[in-house]
Amino acid sequence: MRIAVLGTGQVGRRLASKLVEVGHTVTMGSRTADNADATAWAAETGAAHGTFAQAATTAELIVNATSGTVSVAALTAAGADNLADKIIVDVSNALDFSQGFPPKLVVPAAGSVAEEIQQAFPAARVVKTLNTTNNQVMVDPTRIPGQHSIFLSGDDADAKKQVARLLNSFGWTDAQLIDLGALNTARSTEPVVLLWVSLFQAMGTEDVTIGVFSA
Amino acid sequence: MRIAVLGTGQVGRRLASKLVEVGHTVTMGSRTADNADATAWAAETGAAHGTFAQAATTAELIVNATSGTVSVAALTAAGADNLADKIIVDVSNALDFSQGFPPKLVVPAAGSVAEEIQQAFPAARVVKTLNTTNNQVMVDPTRIPGQHSIFLSGDDADAKKQVARLLNSFGWTDAQLIDLGALNTARSTEPVVLLWVSLFQAMGTEDVTIGVFSA
Repeated sequence: MRIAVLGTGQVGRRLASKLVEVGHTVTMGSRTADNADATAWAAETGAAHGTFAQAATTAELIVNATSGTVSVAALTAAGADNLADKIIVDVSNALDFSQGFPPKLVVPAAGSVAEEIQQAFPAARVVKTLNTTNNQVMVDPTRIPGQHSIFLSGDDADAKKQVARLLNSFGWTDAQLIDLGALNTARSTEPVVLLWVSLFQAMGTEDVTIGVFSA
Repeated sequence: MRIAVLGTGQVGRRLASKLVEVGHTVTMGSRTADNADATAWAAETGAAHGTFAQAATTAELIVNATSGTVSVAALTAAGADNLADKIIVDVSNALDFSQGFPPKLVVPAAGSVAEEIQQAFPAARVVKTLNTTNNQVMVDPTRIPGQHSIFLSGDDADAKKQVARLLNSFGWTDAQLIDLGALNTARSTEPVVLLWVSLFQAMGTEDVTIGVFSA
């Protein structure tokens, strides 16, 4: 599949590399065509890079790995026409470190970043996932033993199914995937990043995540 | 121990009954001395009830089981002098259902309800815990199999230790208790109630909760 990964940070690079590894044709998108991180990543992997719009235009699926505080701006730069009918896998987190540590969660008026994106691009099919754990676990869930969980939120059932298959290709088992339902359930998973930060601080490892238990 | 449970809702009644069961002298506190739920609960258990102030005055430990949106008001009614040097076990959640379902989290300027309480009553020793799961699991963690977790946040290490022993008496094992550190980590566990609501909706059972996994 032709996939655009928007964002050149650790999360974007990690996901883009994994997508290359499992056989996809990946273009990393950034604000400028000559972004140093994207250029280095492309040189290393042999994959492509370009502007947000260049990455999105030929892509069949878009991964939003930009900061949640600028995601709508990045996707606007990618071009609404380049997003129409496409799945946007939103893995973003929106954190405000302006008042120091611990960060505060930025909650858009829409209720969540995922819903803000969906409202801005109604023709896209937004699926929120992966934002609850660290980037290494995202692409290799076996780093942490046990049946920990990853959440899916989205209004398009077929899009969620396709994203679930993508997660399977990263190593996530069906038993680990928790489909929470509509996209507005992203309101309940976006704050989990705060818990992850607390757990990271308290336990001294980035390889920490949560799982669902039920009777 | 003499314990005041402030709040007459499901959570307050469940916790108060469990505290009676494990041998404590419990007074349930409410806004008015003749609260019907408190009166019925006291008749059923043989324990006491009264106003917030009546409950707090002789208590050695206070459980705040009021809604997080009115907790400071309830504790103000209990009387700052009646809270000084005492442990306040804050199990509250602050949810806004005014715009329908799913609810939004109310985040006080202090960062969390727990911190708001601590700022309002600096002589008290606030420990946030138990708010991440349903009231039946709070007092009987074995309802859900497996090593799911409960979180502790607080600035007073001795207070956290005492609360941990209280949780042990409810059936929580030390391995299930996750001490996240300072009280400001309550910012990361108060939003977990939103995830609980999503999980409850998606999985169709109240007996659902989360656990921590690490490498």
